[in-house]
Amino acid sequence: MKAASAAQAKQAARYGRPEGGWRARMYDIIFNSDTKAGKRFDIVLIAAILLSILVVVLESVPAIGGRHAGVMRVLEWSFTLLFTLEYLARLLCVRRPLRYATSFFGIVDLLSVLPTYFSLLVPGSQALLDIRILRLLRVFRIFKLTLYIEEYTRLGEALSASRRKIMVFLSVVLMLVLVLGTLMYVVEGPEHGYTSIPTAMYWAIVTMTTVGYGDITPHTHLGKGIASFMMLLGWGILAVPTGIVTAEMTARRTDRRHGPARTERACGECGATGHEARARFCKDCGAALPASFARE
Amino acid sequence: MKAASAAQAKQAARYGRPEGGWRARMYDIIFNSDTKAGKRFDIVLIAAILLSILVVVLESVPAIGGRHAGVMRVLEWSFTLLFTLEYLARLLCVRRPLRYATSFFGIVDLLSVLPTYFSLLVPGSQALLDIRILRLLRVFRIFKLTLYIEEYTRLGEALSASRRKIMVFLSVVLMLVLVLGTLMYVVEGPEHGYTSIPTAMYWAIVTMTTVGYGDITPHTHLGKGIASFMMLLGWGILAVPTGIVTAEMTARRTDRRHGPARTERACGECGATGHEARARFCKDCGAALPASFARE
Amino acid sequence: MKAASAAQAKQAARYGRPEGGWRARMYDIIFNSDTKAGKRFDIVLIAAILLSILVVVLESVPAIGGRHAGVMRVLEWSFTLLFTLEYLARLLCVRRPLRYATSFFGIVDLLSVLPTYFSLLVPGSQALLDIRILRLLRVFRIFKLTLYIEEYTRLGEALSASRRKIMVFLSVVLMLVLVLGTLMYVVEGPEHGYTSIPTAMYWAIVTMTTVGYGDITPHTHLGKGIASFMMLLGWGILAVPTGIVTAEMTARRTDRRHGPARTERACGECGATGHEARARFCKDCGAALPASFARE
Amino acid sequence: MKAASAAQAKQAARYGRPEGGWRARMYDIIFNSDTKAGKRFDIVLIAAILLSILVVVLESVPAIGGRHAGVMRVLEWSFTLLFTLEYLARLLCVRRPLRYATSFFGIVDLLSVLPTYFSLLVPGSQALLDIRILRLLRVFRIFKLTLYIEEYTRLGEALSASRRKIMVFLSVVLMLVLVLGTLMYVVEGPEHGYTSIPTAMYWAIVTMTTVGYGDITPHTHLGKGIASFMMLLGWGILAVPTGIVTAEMTARRTDRRHGPARTERACGECGATGHEARARFCKDCGAALPASFARE
Repeated sequence: MKAASAAQAKQAARYGRPEGGWRARMYDIIFNSDTKAGKRFDIVLIAAILLSILVVVLESVPAIGGRHAGVMRVLEWSFTLLFTLEYLARLLCVRRPLRYATSFFGIVDLLSVLPTYFSLLVPGSQALLDIRILRLLRVFRIFKLTLYIEEYTRLGEALSASRRKIMVFLSVVLMLVLVLGTLMYVVEGPEHGYTSIPTAMYWAIVTMTTVGYGDITPHTHLGKGIASFMMLLGWGILAVPTGIVTAEMTARRTDRRHGPARTERACGECGATGHEARARFCKDCGAALPASFARE
Repeated sequence: MKAASAAQAKQAARYGRPEGGWRARMYDIIFNSDTKAGKRFDIVLIAAILLSILVVVLESVPAIGGRHAGVMRVLEWSFTLLFTLEYLARLLCVRRPLRYATSFFGIVDLLSVLPTYFSLLVPGSQALLDIRILRLLRVFRIFKLTLYIEEYTRLGEALSASRRKIMVFLSVVLMLVLVLGTLMYVVEGPEHGYTSIPTAMYWAIVTMTTVGYGDITPHTHLGKGIASFMMLLGWGILAVPTGIVTAEMTARRTDRRHGPARTERACGECGATGHEARARFCKDCGAALPASFARE
Repeated sequence: MKAASAAQAKQAARYGRPEGGWRARMYDIIFNSDTKAGKRFDIVLIAAILLSILVVVLESVPAIGGRHAGVMRVLEWSFTLLFTLEYLARLLCVRRPLRYATSFFGIVDLLSVLPTYFSLLVPGSQALLDIRILRLLRVFRIFKLTLYIEEYTRLGEALSASRRKIMVFLSVVLMLVLVLGTLMYVVEGPEHGYTSIPTAMYWAIVTMTTVGYGDITPHTHLGKGIASFMMLLGWGILAVPTGIVTAEMTARRTDRRHGPARTERACGECGATGHEARARFCKDCGAALPASFARE
Repeated sequence: MKAASAAQAKQAARYGRPEGGWRARMYDIIFNSDTKAGKRFDIVLIAAILLSILVVVLESVPAIGGRHAGVMRVLEWSFTLLFTLEYLARLLCVRRPLRYATSFFGIVDLLSVLPTYFSLLVPGSQALLDIRILRLLRVFRIFKLTLYIEEYTRLGEALSASRRKIMVFLSVVLMLVLVLGTLMYVVEGPEHGYTSIPTAMYWAIVTMTTVGYGDITPHTHLGKGIASFMMLLGWGILAVPTGIVTAEMTARRTDRRHGPARTERACGECGATGHEARARFCKDCGAALPASFARE
């Protein structure tokens, strides 16, 4: 059955869709969305992903995680088993299972279920850190959602196309953060919170991105002056281009309304107007235009 | 009488304007703005809405609400009675009163007046929460103002047209908030303020939207590093597109300065180049140009 | 002598340039900039304005204002006398002095010098508040600078042209601030810092403009949720349009590169290509085009 | 050997590339990147710069700088000697060494190595401030990286082209900061943190750039009102133009969907309208169109 979207066609090429039989039917349900069963599978899976993440999130709230620990554990195991079955089914019904297992989504699938199994192997180790790390990995399931919406792929492509510009822009920002952060470290010093250059760089990022927590603030007059410069820089990088763009657009709207620089001269032969200021012959009939030149 | 704007024409269709008599006259005054009486009604109503909201707002200030409690109560009851009469009048003069009562503005009208009556039925219950909730409902009257200005409708339509893009964009931001928030919860932990994943997600939103309250801040070095990445992300989402757009516009302005799309075609007679793509005769010597169209 | 710029021509019309004699010469020096003396006057005046403001600013710093009080007082009186002479000169050399005295810049001039005289009339009243208010009025001299640069006038005109759009936009933001602020007042209440609706509205502005002082922060879970929504709203109002605009520009750049929807069909008669997909006759020679339609 | 990029050609012109011999070969390796040796030199130098900066940054962290002081000192001297050799080599292989020594990069090179030598001349002066200043100067080496990427030069040129607009914009912002800052100093006063006009201006910049540290916040009602106005101003300068630009683009997209500029001209033969402005024959029946050009 034809894959319904570009992303799914790419998948079929990469992992290998089986010829026929029950494997092909399973492939169509799991990987494609153009059959009724395929669509239903997708909806159930999306719902399961969202619910399982909700469980992970709520479990972290002490009030809820404590009181309903049992229910949470049952739900988490149900989802883990469900996703394990889904993972195994995916491996089963493609022709190149290793390809899938090493792809981004294959790794996400594996990392999503491993943690819960891991907590079995290390019995009683309810160390808070372990649990916290395990929760993080389970939250990665959210990325499986992006397969289902085409706009994400287009967004990714647009970003990829501009990546050189983005790198250059980011590197300029990081250079400023390095130099201005070190400057503030020198000016303010550890006694005012700027305990090291990395800390000062963290403060510089907090300031130039206009976040401004306030956990570290300048105390000397020179420091406040440099900080003011940095704030105007960070905010100005947003404000100046939008201002220039708006000026361009308003100018252009005026031009469109009144037309580009053209003269009122009419061609003696065919009567056509709308010639460029510098044109010497009528571009419609070839006759010579009177020699009055209007400037743009 | 013809409705003066599209919004009011829609209203007439939906609620049913009466044929004639005093009901039709009342309809024209209340729902339409093209008669002198209709305009005056609108102005009085807008003034009443703004004043009544001012009363609600000032009443909440302890210094004012306490000292002038009596005056406030009288004013509030006057407005409530006024709006009740207006509500009843609206129901009376349409042909399908139920349609109006269940519309957005009908519900706003009802919710705006009910609270004050409710405080009668529950005598002495000056529970602070009740009063606070009642104030909230009364403040919804402000939405009735939007009927009077057409730009609001257009703004709403523009937003509605782009809603799929907005949904996709928002969902990407929420995914980042979920994953990066959980990461910070793992890295920093409850001992530094990140008490649960929802709390960490709240912090992630505070950070990525560059609000930066400072009620929760990272303390570990790794945490500060991840936070720096998130801040550059949230700010960069604003800065990078504006930068790209400005680059595009400046490039385009250069194009416009140097002229519209020109072809490389040389005139057979005089050898001049730089003709407009669409020109048919050489603008320097008048000879006919070969009929090949170059694309921009 | 002809006024060198539009702003100065408007001035001449409004205040009345004298016919001749020493008054006309004084007018040209003071109000116009096209003579050598006129230019020199402008530069001296700009320098005086900037220096006098520096004196006001430095005087407010306790360390400086205390130690050099005498010097500051002398400087301030020098500037005051200078500006008084300038003000009187302006009144003297125009034909309609009352027009100037009641204009924006005339009032700025008067307010700039009055305070220092006022401090004479009220001897010994070194009340901190008086001094602080007086400083504020003297700082208004900075606005006189705007006469000298044409871009300011253009900026003002651009803003004036868009003022209806700005009003509508601002009113929507204020409505959101009112309703969401009241909602937070209800949800969080005075015990968490939201002491009244105006205070909650102040917090709402601090949050939606992404400033985020942190002097008031939500404490309840529901409050943090509503705050998160408001932060995404305030930041999104900046992020969503820039994203849409960038998408448009990238799409348009692709179109410009490949041309609008045209077919490859060549006209049988004259061989011209580049016809619209839907065209049925060649727009250059009139012959009929083969009937294959390509869609956009 | 031809310089591979515009920046390097400018360098050759300014500093003087030697005719031949070992000096010319050294010049090509150091200043140009089109030979294999030249490219390798660049890569090694970039790596050395980045590593040396890493050493400076890590050295400032007490935990690391303390424990590995010895290693850090060795690394720092290695880099200093390396950069000294590079600096001397550059001076040796150009024809106008004084030109290089006084250029921006020449000064950066010198400032980058001087500090470490200076710490020898002033033995035992481990005054924290000295060390901090020395670190700052060494961090300037990062600017040498910009020679290697062309986009930086283009970015610099774009900024330079718009510098008048940027100056005007910045000066308007600074005027607002001055006046509104002084206003808040008057309204709130030193007892609420606004200790002087410069401090109030610092707070005004923190607020209008939406950074919002929270180290100084308004306490009076009037102060909070003025602050709200300033926040809406600072945020609005970003929000209003993006909104206007998006409105323009959406309007234009509608235009493009409905076709390019069309005239109202009706075809004499078949009466069809909707012809392109420049069409000469009716695209529906082939008859010639009257030669009147309509403007968009």
